[in-house]
Amino acid sequence: MLKFFYAAETCALASHIALEEAGAQYEPVRLSFRSSDQRKPEYLAINPKGRVPSLVTDDGVLTETPAILAYVAQRYPNARLAPVDSPFAFARVQAFNSYLCSTVHVAHAHRFRGSRWADDPAAIEAMRLKVPAAVGECFDLIEREMLEGPWVMGETYTVCDPYLFTLAQWLEGDGVDTARLPRVVDHRRRMAERPAVKKALAQELSAG
Amino acid sequence: MLKFFYAAETCALASHIALEEAGAQYEPVRLSFRSSDQRKPEYLAINPKGRVPSLVTDDGVLTETPAILAYVAQRYPNARLAPVDSPFAFARVQAFNSYLCSTVHVAHAHRFRGSRWADDPAAIEAMRLKVPAAVGECFDLIEREMLEGPWVMGETYTVCDPYLFTLAQWLEGDGVDTARLPRVVDHRRRMAERPAVKKALAQELSAG
Repeated sequence: MLKFFYAAETCALASHIALEEAGAQYEPVRLSFRSSDQRKPEYLAINPKGRVPSLVTDDGVLTETPAILAYVAQRYPNARLAPVDSPFAFARVQAFNSYLCSTVHVAHAHRFRGSRWADDPAAIEAMRLKVPAAVGECFDLIEREMLEGPWVMGETYTVCDPYLFTLAQWLEGDGVDTARLPRVVDHRRRMAERPAVKKALAQELSAG
Repeated sequence: MLKFFYAAETCALASHIALEEAGAQYEPVRLSFRSSDQRKPEYLAINPKGRVPSLVTDDGVLTETPAILAYVAQRYPNARLAPVDSPFAFARVQAFNSYLCSTVHVAHAHRFRGSRWADDPAAIEAMRLKVPAAVGECFDLIEREMLEGPWVMGETYTVCDPYLFTLAQWLEGDGVDTARLPRVVDHRRRMAERPAVKKALAQELSAG
């Protein structure tokens, strides 16, 4: 059986939702960042990067949200979570998810994780100050150019949707005025109504 | 025919090499960052993100290095650039490439692109100062845990290899002492001997 390591209020929610959408059998294992579980030797033996999510499969460990999402889509093809039979359409899904991990999540990470990229406390504060603008610019592009509607890739729900939903959870905290993002907010609202999303969120909250 | 937009000395080199490894028919189109080609309306119509690489296919445009690499591997299966028949093995390739785009490239980007994440010149300088440590930490992990050898995924060459090679080009400029990375340096040396790598590099240099 799959074993899924996550922490609450992290990007791991995207994979958590995808596992639920796929109807996968998996054991969720919650890490506490407050207790620095992700830095403990037993977890570093699973994921030496000390990050979440990690998905332990019978074949070995997978990390990184876009890779786990692609794996879930390919391993559970009946759930139709990505157009796995078309190299182009599948690559478009991956391009969207790659933008989320390499640009959008990174823009957000400068709010709490500035010490990854500078030591000076004033510099870390300067990064924090720019988060609303940097994250806002990413979501303006998503609103205007990328979110086709009703789902990210158009008529068909894919693993892009839980990932966008996950990062969109952080908009208000990142200081982005969501009034300018009506399509993203509408997507978030419709996502929140899906049983798989409710179940993943309930699981993350109840384990607290 | 494919049309491939790139700029010299960027991460686009990874896709450029992969296209050569695949024996793909493509037209390379070089953008000049010095002339801000990537911000001109005709390019933004292709890629609204204003970044490279972009791959224009008969089906539409693809962006983001991990997505383009996955596409090349899937579209040219005879070149055997990824284990496309195994969801797990394919996801491992994607996990490695996702780490490169979301963590390693981002650590490097704080050297020249600090203005994405802060406005204060002192903060941008503080980011620059931490690049050797931040990039070095990523490559220590690659050296120790991720590069299986002789290729990234072990015995078989994959699209992970041109991507690692591309980011490893920047080590000295990023101030990382490569003496502590013998396996990465050996990989880089062996990559440089491959005909596809020589051809992509020659094309990028000659068009200058």
